[in-house]
Amino acid sequence: MLVLLHQCGRSALTLRTVQAVRKSYYSTQMAKRVAVVLAGCGVYDGSEIHEASAVLVHLSRGGASVNMFAPNTDQMHVVDHLKGEPSQEKRNVLVESARLARGDIQDLSKLSVKDHDAVIVPGGFGAAKNLCTWAVQGKDCSINEQVKAMLQAFHDEGKPIGLCCISPVLAAKVFPGCEVTVGVEKDDKYPDTTDTAAAINQLGCKHVSKSVDQSHVDEKNKLVTTCAFMCKAPIHEIFDGIGSMVQDVLKRA
Amino acid sequence: MLVLLHQCGRSALTLRTVQAVRKSYYSTQMAKRVAVVLAGCGVYDGSEIHEASAVLVHLSRGGASVNMFAPNTDQMHVVDHLKGEPSQEKRNVLVESARLARGDIQDLSKLSVKDHDAVIVPGGFGAAKNLCTWAVQGKDCSINEQVKAMLQAFHDEGKPIGLCCISPVLAAKVFPGCEVTVGVEKDDKYPDTTDTAAAINQLGCKHVSKSVDQSHVDEKNKLVTTCAFMCKAPIHEIFDGIGSMVQDVLKRA
Repeated sequence: MLVLLHQCGRSALTLRTVQAVRKSYYSTQMAKRVAVVLAGCGVYDGSEIHEASAVLVHLSRGGASVNMFAPNTDQMHVVDHLKGEPSQEKRNVLVESARLARGDIQDLSKLSVKDHDAVIVPGGFGAAKNLCTWAVQGKDCSINEQVKAMLQAFHDEGKPIGLCCISPVLAAKVFPGCEVTVGVEKDDKYPDTTDTAAAINQLGCKHVSKSVDQSHVDEKNKLVTTCAFMCKAPIHEIFDGIGSMVQDVLKRA
Repeated sequence: MLVLLHQCGRSALTLRTVQAVRKSYYSTQMAKRVAVVLAGCGVYDGSEIHEASAVLVHLSRGGASVNMFAPNTDQMHVVDHLKGEPSQEKRNVLVESARLARGDIQDLSKLSVKDHDAVIVPGGFGAAKNLCTWAVQGKDCSINEQVKAMLQAFHDEGKPIGLCCISPVLAAKVFPGCEVTVGVEKDDKYPDTTDTAAAINQLGCKHVSKSVDQSHVDEKNKLVTTCAFMCKAPIHEIFDGIGSMVQDVLKRA
Protein backbone atom coordinates (compact mmCIF):
# COMPACT_ATOMS: atom_id res chain seq x y z
CA MET A 1 0.00 0.00 0.00
CA LEU A 2 2.93 2.32 0.62
CA VAL A 3 3.92 1.94 -3.00
CA LEU A 4 0.39 2.81 -4.08
CA LEU A 5 0.28 5.85 -1.84
CA HIS A 6 3.61 7.03 -3.12
CA GLN A 7 2.56 6.57 -6.73
CA CYS A 8 -0.67 8.39 -6.09
CA GLY A 9 1.00 11.28 -4.38
CA ARG A 10 3.41 11.66 -7.25
CA SER A 11 0.64 11.46 -9.81
CA ALA A 12 -1.41 14.06 -8.04
CA LEU A 13 1.57 16.38 -7.86
CA THR A 14 2.33 15.99 -11.54
CA LEU A 15 -1.26 16.64 -12.48
CA ARG A 16 -1.47 19.70 -10.25
CA THR A 17 1.63 21.04 -12.01
CA VAL A 18 -0.13 20.54 -15.33
CA GLN A 19 -3.10 22.50 -14.04
CA ALA A 20 -0.91 25.33 -12.78
CA VAL A 21 0.83 25.61 -16.13
CA ARG A 22 -2.47 25.44 -17.99
CA LYS A 23 -3.78 28.28 -15.85
CA SER A 24 -0.73 30.49 -16.30
CA TYR A 25 -0.94 29.88 -20.05
CA TYR A 26 -4.20 31.82 -20.13
CA SER A 27 -3.50 34.32 -17.38
CA THR A 28 -3.25 37.26 -19.70
CA GLN A 29 -5.02 40.53 -19.05
CA MET A 30 -7.53 39.74 -21.78
CA ALA A 31 -8.59 36.31 -20.54
CA LYS A 32 -12.21 36.10 -19.47
CA ARG A 33 -12.45 34.55 -16.00
CA VAL A 34 -15.21 31.96 -16.00
CA ALA A 35 -16.52 29.95 -13.06
CA VAL A 36 -17.86 26.49 -13.92
CA VAL A 37 -20.20 25.02 -11.28
CA LEU A 38 -20.41 21.23 -11.21
CA ALA A 39 -22.88 18.88 -9.52
CA GLY A 40 -21.09 15.53 -9.36
CA CYS A 41 -19.80 13.27 -12.12
CA GLY A 42 -22.23 11.18 -14.16
CA VAL A 43 -25.46 11.91 -16.04
CA TYR A 44 -27.90 10.16 -13.65
CA ASP A 45 -26.69 11.64 -10.36
CA GLY A 46 -24.16 14.35 -11.23
CA SER A 47 -23.02 16.70 -13.97
CA GLU A 48 -23.39 15.25 -17.45
CA ILE A 49 -19.77 14.36 -18.17
CA HIS A 50 -19.67 15.17 -21.89
CA GLU A 51 -21.46 18.48 -21.40
CA ALA A 52 -18.99 19.51 -18.70
CA SER A 53 -16.03 18.42 -20.83
CA ALA A 54 -17.38 20.29 -23.87
CA VAL A 55 -17.79 23.45 -21.77
CA LEU A 56 -14.12 23.21 -20.72
CA VAL A 57 -12.85 22.54 -24.25
CA HIS A 58 -14.75 25.50 -25.70
CA LEU A 59 -13.74 27.82 -22.84
CA SER A 60 -10.11 26.80 -23.36
CA ARG A 61 -10.33 27.43 -27.10
CA GLY A 62 -11.90 30.80 -26.35
CA GLY A 63 -8.90 31.73 -24.19
CA ALA A 64 -10.87 31.86 -20.93
CA SER A 65 -9.33 31.33 -17.50
CA VAL A 66 -11.44 28.72 -15.69
CA ASN A 67 -12.09 27.97 -12.03
CA MET A 68 -14.32 25.08 -11.04
CA PHE A 69 -16.61 24.85 -8.03
CA ALA A 70 -19.17 22.46 -6.54
CA PRO A 71 -21.28 22.38 -3.38
CA ASN A 72 -19.70 20.42 -0.52
CA THR A 73 -22.79 18.32 0.20
CA ASP A 74 -23.98 14.74 -0.17
CA GLN A 75 -25.46 13.82 -3.53
CA MET A 76 -29.27 13.40 -3.51
CA HIS A 77 -28.44 9.83 -4.34
CA VAL A 78 -25.86 7.66 -6.06
CA VAL A 79 -27.02 5.89 -9.21
CA ASP A 80 -25.40 2.71 -10.50
CA HIS A 81 -25.05 3.85 -14.12
CA LEU A 82 -24.80 0.28 -15.38
CA LYS A 83 -28.16 -0.75 -13.91
CA GLY A 84 -29.75 2.70 -14.06
CA GLU A 85 -30.86 2.28 -10.45
CA PRO A 86 -29.97 4.07 -7.19
CA SER A 87 -27.49 2.29 -4.95
CA GLN A 88 -27.16 2.58 -1.18
CA GLU A 89 -23.82 4.43 -1.39
CA LYS A 90 -23.17 7.96 -0.19
CA ARG A 91 -20.98 10.24 -2.29
CA ASN A 92 -20.09 13.92 -1.91
CA VAL A 93 -20.85 16.33 -4.75
CA LEU A 94 -17.54 18.23 -4.43
CA VAL A 95 -15.42 15.07 -4.20
CA GLU A 96 -17.07 13.47 -7.25
CA SER A 97 -16.98 16.74 -9.22
CA ALA A 98 -13.22 16.74 -8.61
CA ARG A 99 -13.02 13.83 -11.08
CA LEU A 100 -14.18 16.13 -13.86
CA ALA A 101 -11.86 18.89 -12.63
CA ARG A 102 -8.78 16.63 -12.38
CA GLY A 103 -8.57 17.66 -8.72
CA ASP A 104 -8.55 21.39 -9.40
CA ILE A 105 -11.85 22.44 -7.81
CA GLN A 106 -13.07 24.43 -4.84
CA ASP A 107 -16.00 24.43 -2.47
CA LEU A 108 -18.80 26.53 -3.99
CA SER A 109 -18.80 28.63 -0.80
CA LYS A 110 -15.41 30.02 -1.96
CA LEU A 111 -16.73 31.34 -5.28
CA SER A 112 -16.07 35.09 -5.42
CA VAL A 113 -18.34 36.66 -8.02
CA LYS A 114 -16.13 39.76 -8.30
CA ASP A 115 -13.24 37.53 -9.42
CA HIS A 116 -15.21 36.10 -12.34
CA ASP A 117 -16.70 37.54 -15.52
CA ALA A 118 -19.25 34.79 -16.09
CA VAL A 119 -20.53 31.48 -14.76
CA ILE A 120 -21.55 28.29 -16.58
CA VAL A 121 -23.52 25.38 -15.11
CA PRO A 122 -23.52 22.16 -17.19
CA GLY A 123 -26.56 19.87 -17.09
CA GLY A 124 -27.14 16.26 -16.14
CA PHE A 125 -29.47 15.04 -13.40
CA GLY A 126 -27.02 16.36 -10.82
CA ALA A 127 -28.13 19.88 -11.73
CA ALA A 128 -31.72 18.81 -11.02
CA LYS A 129 -30.88 16.77 -7.91
CA ASN A 130 -27.89 18.36 -6.18
CA LEU A 131 -28.19 22.03 -7.20
CA CYS A 132 -31.98 22.01 -6.85
CA THR A 133 -34.69 19.39 -6.39
CA TRP A 134 -36.34 19.70 -9.83
CA ALA A 135 -35.85 15.97 -10.56
CA VAL A 136 -38.32 15.07 -7.81
CA GLN A 137 -40.43 18.24 -7.34
CA GLY A 138 -40.49 19.90 -10.77
CA LYS A 139 -41.48 23.57 -10.69
CA ASP A 140 -42.14 23.36 -6.93
CA CYS A 141 -38.48 22.51 -6.31
CA SER A 142 -36.16 24.31 -3.93
CA ILE A 143 -32.74 25.63 -4.98
CA ASN A 144 -29.55 25.02 -3.00
CA GLU A 145 -29.00 28.29 -1.10
CA GLN A 146 -25.38 28.73 -2.29
CA VAL A 147 -26.41 28.12 -5.89
CA LYS A 148 -29.29 30.61 -5.60
CA ALA A 149 -27.08 33.29 -4.02
CA MET A 150 -24.37 32.72 -6.65
CA LEU A 151 -26.80 33.04 -9.58
CA GLN A 152 -28.39 36.16 -8.09
CA ALA A 153 -24.97 37.75 -7.55
CA PHE A 154 -23.83 37.18 -11.16
CA HIS A 155 -27.22 38.50 -12.34
CA ASP A 156 -27.04 41.58 -10.09
CA GLU A 157 -23.62 42.44 -11.51
CA GLY A 158 -24.83 42.02 -15.10
CA LYS A 159 -22.46 39.11 -15.72
CA PRO A 160 -23.57 36.38 -18.12
CA ILE A 161 -24.84 32.99 -16.96
CA GLY A 162 -24.54 29.98 -19.28
CA LEU A 163 -26.76 26.94 -18.75
CA CYS A 164 -27.42 23.77 -20.71
CA CYS A 165 -29.62 20.66 -20.76
CA ILE A 166 -31.82 20.73 -17.62
CA SER A 167 -29.86 23.47 -15.81
CA PRO A 168 -31.90 26.32 -17.39
CA VAL A 169 -34.63 25.41 -14.86
CA LEU A 170 -32.35 26.98 -12.23
CA ALA A 171 -32.76 30.32 -14.01
CA ALA A 172 -36.50 29.79 -14.40
CA LYS A 173 -36.81 29.38 -10.62
CA VAL A 174 -34.47 32.25 -9.65
CA PHE A 175 -35.28 34.88 -12.32
CA PRO A 176 -39.04 35.24 -12.81
CA GLY A 177 -39.96 36.31 -16.31
CA CYS A 178 -36.68 35.18 -17.89
CA GLU A 179 -36.36 33.43 -21.26
CA VAL A 180 -34.64 30.05 -21.64
CA THR A 181 -34.54 27.08 -23.99
CA VAL A 182 -34.50 23.37 -23.18
CA GLY A 183 -34.94 22.31 -26.81
CA VAL A 184 -37.77 22.16 -29.33
CA GLU A 185 -41.34 21.61 -28.09
CA LYS A 186 -43.54 18.92 -29.68
CA ASP A 187 -40.66 17.24 -31.50
CA ASP A 188 -39.81 13.56 -30.94
CA LYS A 189 -36.10 14.35 -31.02
CA TYR A 190 -36.66 16.31 -27.77
CA PRO A 191 -38.74 13.86 -25.68
CA ASP A 192 -38.68 15.74 -22.34
CA THR A 193 -38.73 19.29 -23.70
CA THR A 194 -42.50 19.81 -23.98
CA ASP A 195 -43.20 18.95 -20.32
CA THR A 196 -40.18 20.86 -19.04
CA ALA A 197 -41.10 23.89 -21.17
CA ALA A 198 -44.65 23.82 -19.79
CA ALA A 199 -43.31 23.87 -16.23
CA ILE A 200 -40.99 26.76 -17.12
CA ASN A 201 -43.92 28.70 -18.58
CA GLN A 202 -46.00 27.97 -15.46
CA LEU A 203 -43.27 29.66 -13.43
CA GLY A 204 -43.98 32.85 -15.38
CA CYS A 205 -40.94 32.48 -17.63
CA LYS A 206 -40.87 32.09 -21.40
CA HIS A 207 -39.64 28.92 -23.05
CA VAL A 208 -38.14 29.51 -26.49
CA SER A 209 -37.78 26.46 -28.80
CA LYS A 210 -34.23 26.17 -30.12
CA SER A 211 -32.55 23.23 -31.83
CA VAL A 212 -29.53 21.39 -30.45
CA ASP A 213 -27.06 23.48 -32.49
CA GLN A 214 -28.44 26.79 -31.23
CA SER A 215 -28.28 28.75 -28.00
CA HIS A 216 -30.87 31.24 -26.87
CA VAL A 217 -29.78 34.56 -25.39
CA ASP A 218 -32.02 36.45 -22.99
CA GLU A 219 -30.20 39.76 -23.40
CA LYS A 220 -32.07 41.49 -20.57
CA ASN A 221 -31.01 38.86 -18.03
CA LYS A 222 -27.75 37.90 -19.77
CA LEU A 223 -28.81 34.26 -19.76
CA VAL A 224 -27.43 31.95 -22.44
CA THR A 225 -29.06 28.51 -22.71
CA THR A 226 -28.83 25.47 -25.00
CA CYS A 227 -30.56 22.09 -24.82
CA ALA A 228 -27.57 19.70 -25.16
CA PHE A 229 -28.61 16.13 -24.17
CA MET A 230 -32.30 17.14 -23.95
CA CYS A 231 -32.02 16.36 -27.68
CA LYS A 232 -31.55 12.85 -29.08
CA ALA A 233 -28.55 13.90 -31.14
CA PRO A 234 -25.12 12.47 -31.90
CA ILE A 235 -22.59 13.62 -29.31
CA HIS A 236 -20.68 15.88 -31.72
CA GLU A 237 -23.83 17.91 -32.36
CA ILE A 238 -24.26 18.34 -28.63
CA PHE A 239 -20.60 19.37 -28.40
CA ASP A 240 -21.15 22.00 -31.09
CA GLY A 241 -24.33 23.33 -29.47
CA ILE A 242 -22.46 23.81 -26.20
CA GLY A 243 -19.80 25.62 -28.22
CA SER A 244 -22.45 28.06 -29.38
CA MET A 245 -23.53 28.66 -25.77
CA VAL A 246 -19.95 29.14 -24.54
CA GLN A 247 -19.16 31.60 -27.33
CA ASP A 248 -22.31 33.61 -26.56
CA VAL A 249 -21.30 33.71 -22.88
CA LEU A 250 -17.74 34.85 -23.64
CA LYS A 251 -18.97 37.59 -26.01
CA ARG A 252 -21.00 39.08 -23.15
CA ALA A 253 -18.42 38.58 -20.37
CA MET B 1 -37.73 6.58 -2.09
CA LEU B 2 -40.41 5.25 -4.42
CA VAL B 3 -40.55 8.64 -6.09
CA LEU B 4 -36.78 8.60 -6.53
CA LEU B 5 -36.82 5.10 -7.98
CA HIS B 6 -39.60 6.03 -10.36
CA GLN B 7 -37.77 9.13 -11.50
CA CYS B 8 -34.58 7.19 -11.96
CA GLY B 9 -36.26 4.44 -13.94
CA ARG B 10 -37.85 6.98 -16.23
CA SER B 11 -34.59 8.84 -16.70
CA ALA B 12 -32.74 5.67 -17.54
CA LEU B 13 -35.39 4.72 -20.05
CA THR B 14 -35.30 8.11 -21.73
CA LEU B 15 -31.53 8.08 -21.92
CA ARG B 16 -31.46 4.56 -23.33
CA THR B 17 -33.91 5.74 -26.02
CA VAL B 18 -31.51 8.56 -26.85
CA GLN B 19 -28.69 6.04 -27.17
CA ALA B 20 -30.75 3.75 -29.40
CA VAL B 21 -31.64 6.63 -31.70
CA ARG B 22 -28.03 7.83 -31.73
CA LYS B 23 -26.91 4.34 -32.76
CA SER B 24 -29.48 3.96 -35.51
CA TYR B 25 -28.49 7.40 -36.80
CA TYR B 26 -25.11 6.00 -37.71
CA SER B 27 -26.08 2.45 -38.57
CA THR B 28 -25.39 2.87 -42.26
CA GLN B 29 -23.41 0.35 -44.24
CA MET B 30 -20.48 2.70 -44.35
CA ALA B 31 -20.18 3.40 -40.64
CA LYS B 32 -16.94 2.14 -39.11
CA ARG B 33 -17.69 0.08 -36.00
CA VAL B 34 -15.36 1.11 -33.21
CA ALA B 35 -15.01 -0.44 -29.77
CA VAL B 36 -13.95 1.96 -26.99
CA VAL B 37 -12.48 0.25 -23.93
CA LEU B 38 -12.77 2.19 -20.67
CA ALA B 39 -11.06 1.72 -17.30
CA GLY B 40 -13.25 3.60 -14.83
CA CYS B 41 -14.15 7.28 -14.61
CA GLY B 42 -11.60 9.79 -13.33
CA VAL B 43 -7.98 10.56 -14.16
CA TYR B 44 -6.38 9.20 -10.96
CA ASP B 45 -8.11 5.80 -10.82
CA GLY B 46 -10.01 5.41 -14.09
CA SER B 47 -10.19 6.58 -17.68
CA GLU B 48 -9.23 10.23 -18.13
CA ILE B 49 -12.67 11.76 -18.56
CA HIS B 50 -11.82 14.44 -21.12
CA GLU B 51 -9.79 12.04 -23.25
CA ALA B 52 -12.67 9.54 -23.30
CA SER B 53 -15.16 12.28 -24.13
CA ALA B 54 -12.95 13.66 -26.91
CA VAL B 55 -12.63 10.16 -28.41
CA LEU B 56 -16.44 9.86 -28.51
CA VAL B 57 -16.96 13.34 -30.01
CA HIS B 58 -14.42 12.73 -32.77
CA LEU B 59 -15.75 9.23 -33.50
CA SER B 60 -19.26 10.66 -33.74
CA ARG B 61 -18.14 13.42 -36.08
CA GLY B 62 -16.35 10.79 -38.17
CA GLY B 63 -19.62 8.86 -38.56
CA ALA B 64 -18.45 5.83 -36.59
CA SER B 65 -20.76 3.44 -34.78
CA VAL B 66 -19.47 3.06 -31.21
CA ASN B 67 -19.77 0.32 -28.59
CA MET B 68 -18.20 0.75 -25.18
CA PHE B 69 -16.69 -1.93 -22.97
CA ALA B 70 -14.86 -2.23 -19.65
CA PRO B 71 -13.55 -5.08 -17.53
CA ASN B 72 -15.97 -6.23 -14.82
CA THR B 73 -13.40 -6.09 -12.00
CA ASP B 74 -12.63 -4.03 -8.93
CA GLN B 75 -10.55 -0.91 -9.49
CA MET B 76 -6.93 -1.19 -8.28
CA HIS B 77 -7.99 1.52 -5.89
CA VAL B 78 -10.37 4.44 -5.52
CA VAL B 79 -8.76 7.88 -5.36
CA ASP B 80 -10.43 10.85 -3.71
CA HIS B 81 -9.81 13.31 -6.56
CA LEU B 82 -10.22 16.30 -4.25
CA LYS B 83 -7.44 15.21 -1.89
CA GLY B 84 -5.43 13.28 -4.49
CA GLU B 85 -5.25 10.34 -2.09
CA PRO B 86 -6.60 6.78 -2.16
CA SER B 87 -9.74 6.18 -0.12
CA GLN B 88 -10.87 2.91 1.45
CA GLU B 89 -13.80 2.51 -0.94
CA LYS B 90 -14.26 -0.29 -3.45
CA ARG B 91 -15.59 0.52 -6.90
CA ASN B 92 -16.09 -1.65 -9.98
CA VAL B 93 -14.41 -0.65 -13.25
CA LEU B 94 -17.43 -1.52 -15.43
CA VAL B 95 -19.94 0.25 -13.15
CA GLU B 96 -17.86 3.44 -12.97
CA SER B 97 -17.08 3.35 -16.70
CA ALA B 98 -20.87 3.31 -17.25
CA ARG B 99 -20.86 6.96 -16.09
CA LEU B 100 -18.83 7.90 -19.16
CA ALA B 101 -20.99 5.69 -21.36
CA ARG B 102 -24.32 7.08 -20.04
CA GLY B 103 -25.21 3.50 -19.12
CA ASP B 104 -24.61 2.06 -22.58
CA ILE B 105 -21.65 -0.22 -21.92
CA GLN B 106 -20.90 -3.93 -21.82
CA ASP B 107 -18.59 -6.28 -19.97
CA LEU B 108 -15.27 -6.48 -21.86
CA SER B 109 -15.74 -10.28 -22.02
CA LYS B 110 -18.58 -9.60 -24.52
CA LEU B 111 -16.39 -7.71 -27.00
CA SER B 112 -16.53 -9.51 -30.35
CA VAL B 113 -13.54 -8.47 -32.45
CA LYS B 114 -15.22 -9.62 -35.67
CA ASP B 115 -18.04 -7.12 -35.02
CA HIS B 116 -15.65 -4.16 -34.84
CA ASP B 117 -13.31 -2.48 -37.30
CA ALA B 118 -11.07 -0.83 -34.71
CA VAL B 119 -10.55 -0.34 -30.98
CA ILE B 120 -9.58 2.76 -29.00
CA VAL B 121 -8.37 2.84 -25.39
CA PRO B 122 -8.29 6.30 -23.74
CA GLY B 123 -5.67 7.06 -21.10
CA GLY B 124 -5.77 8.11 -17.46
CA PHE B 125 -4.30 6.19 -14.55
CA GLY B 126 -7.09 3.63 -14.92
CA ALA B 127 -5.36 2.37 -18.07
CA ALA B 128 -2.18 1.89 -16.00
CA LYS B 129 -3.95 0.48 -12.93
CA ASN B 130 -7.04 -1.43 -14.07
CA LEU B 131 -6.06 -2.59 -17.58
CA CYS B 132 -2.48 -3.34 -16.55
CA THR B 133 -0.29 -2.66 -13.51
CA TRP B 134 2.12 -0.16 -15.12
CA ALA B 135 1.35 2.49 -12.46
CA VAL B 136 3.00 0.36 -9.79
CA GLN B 137 5.32 -1.98 -11.74
CA GLY B 138 6.37 -0.01 -14.81
CA LYS B 139 7.76 -2.15 -17.63
CA ASP B 140 7.52 -5.27 -15.42
CA CYS B 141 3.75 -4.88 -15.22
CA SER B 142 1.19 -7.53 -16.06
CA ILE B 143 -1.71 -6.93 -18.45
CA ASN B 144 -5.30 -7.87 -17.68
CA GLU B 145 -5.86 -11.13 -19.60
CA GLN B 146 -9.03 -9.92 -21.36
CA VAL B 147 -7.30 -6.71 -22.42
CA LYS B 148 -4.29 -8.63 -23.71
CA ALA B 149 -6.42 -11.11 -25.68
CA MET B 150 -8.52 -8.26 -27.12
CA LEU B 151 -5.46 -6.30 -28.29
CA GLN B 152 -3.88 -9.40 -29.80
CA ALA B 153 -7.11 -10.29 -31.63
CA PHE B 154 -7.46 -6.81 -33.22
CA HIS B 155 -3.76 -6.96 -34.16
CA ASP B 156 -4.06 -10.47 -35.63
CA GLU B 157 -6.93 -9.30 -37.84
CA GLY B 158 -5.01 -6.24 -39.01
CA LYS B 159 -7.53 -3.86 -37.41
CA PRO B 160 -6.24 -0.54 -36.09
CA ILE B 161 -5.72 0.15 -32.39
CA GLY B 162 -5.86 3.73 -31.09
CA LEU B 163 -4.21 4.63 -27.78
CA CYS B 164 -3.53 7.89 -25.97
CA CYS B 165 -1.80 9.32 -22.90
CA ILE B 166 -0.36 6.38 -20.90
CA SER B 167 -2.32 3.65 -22.72
CA PRO B 168 0.37 3.18 -25.44
CA VAL B 169 2.32 1.22 -22.78
CA LEU B 170 -0.28 -1.54 -23.30
CA ALA B 171 0.93 -1.89 -26.89
CA ALA B 172 4.57 -1.74 -25.79
CA LYS B 173 3.97 -4.73 -23.50
CA VAL B 174 1.85 -6.78 -25.92
CA PHE B 175 3.57 -6.05 -29.29
CA PRO B 176 7.35 -6.33 -28.99
CA GLY B 177 9.16 -4.04 -31.41
CA CYS B 178 6.21 -1.73 -32.01
CA GLU B 179 6.45 2.06 -32.29
CA VAL B 180 4.45 4.40 -30.05
CA THR B 181 4.51 7.96 -28.77
CA VAL B 182 3.81 9.27 -25.28
CA GLY B 183 4.93 12.82 -26.10
CA VAL B 184 8.22 14.64 -26.58
CA GLU B 185 11.32 13.46 -24.71
CA LYS B 186 13.47 15.94 -22.77
CA ASP B 187 10.87 18.72 -22.92
CA ASP B 188 9.46 20.34 -19.75
CA LYS B 189 5.99 20.44 -21.29
CA TYR B 190 6.06 16.61 -21.18
CA PRO B 191 7.27 15.90 -17.61
CA ASP B 192 6.70 12.12 -17.53
CA THR B 193 7.50 11.35 -21.16
CA THR B 194 11.28 10.83 -20.89
CA ASP B 195 11.01 8.15 -18.19
CA THR B 196 8.06 6.43 -19.83
CA ALA B 197 9.81 6.47 -23.22
CA ALA B 198 12.91 4.91 -21.65
CA ALA B 199 10.83 2.07 -20.22
CA ILE B 200 9.14 1.57 -23.61
CA ASN B 201 12.55 1.39 -25.30
CA GLN B 202 13.75 -1.08 -22.65
CA LEU B 203 10.87 -3.34 -23.68
CA GLY B 204 12.40 -3.50 -27.15
CA CYS B 205 9.94 -1.05 -28.66
CA LYS B 206 10.66 2.33 -30.23
CA HIS B 207 9.45 5.55 -28.67
CA VAL B 208 8.85 8.30 -31.23
CA SER B 209 8.65 11.89 -29.94
CA LYS B 210 5.48 13.61 -31.15
CA SER B 211 3.87 16.81 -29.94
CA VAL B 212 0.40 17.02 -28.39
CA ASP B 213 -1.25 17.94 -31.70
CA GLN B 214 0.21 14.94 -33.52
CA SER B 215 -0.43 11.22 -33.58
CA HIS B 216 2.14 8.61 -34.50
CA VAL B 217 1.17 5.75 -36.80
CA ASP B 218 3.03 2.44 -36.67
CA GLU B 219 1.78 1.24 -40.06
CA LYS B 220 3.15 -2.28 -39.67
CA ASN B 221 1.24 -2.87 -36.43
CA LYS B 222 -1.65 -0.48 -37.26
CA LEU B 223 -1.08 1.32 -33.95
CA VAL B 224 -2.11 4.96 -33.66
CA THR B 225 -0.90 6.81 -30.56
CA THR B 226 -0.99 10.38 -29.22
CA CYS B 227 0.22 11.82 -25.92
CA ALA B 228 -2.90 13.76 -24.76
CA PHE B 229 -2.56 14.71 -21.05
CA MET B 230 1.06 13.50 -20.94
CA CYS B 231 1.55 17.09 -22.21
CA LYS B 232 0.98 20.20 -20.11
CA ALA B 233 -1.32 21.72 -22.68
CA PRO B 234 -4.64 23.55 -22.65
CA ILE B 235 -7.53 21.12 -22.87
CA HIS B 236 -8.56 22.16 -26.40
CA GLU B 237 -5.10 21.20 -27.71
CA ILE B 238 -5.48 17.79 -26.09
CA PHE B 239 -8.94 17.53 -27.66
CA ASP B 240 -7.47 18.30 -31.10
CA GLY B 241 -4.58 15.82 -30.68
CA ILE B 242 -7.07 13.09 -29.87
CA GLY B 243 -8.97 14.14 -33.00
CA SER B 244 -5.83 13.46 -35.01
CA MET B 245 -5.53 9.99 -33.47
CA VAL B 246 -9.20 9.16 -34.06
CA GLN B 247 -9.03 10.28 -37.69
CA ASP B 248 -5.91 8.17 -38.27
CA VAL B 249 -7.69 5.16 -36.75
CA LEU B 250 -10.82 5.65 -38.88
CA LYS B 251 -8.74 6.00 -42.08
CA ARG B 252 -7.24 2.57 -41.42
CA ALA B 253 -10.42 0.83 -40.20
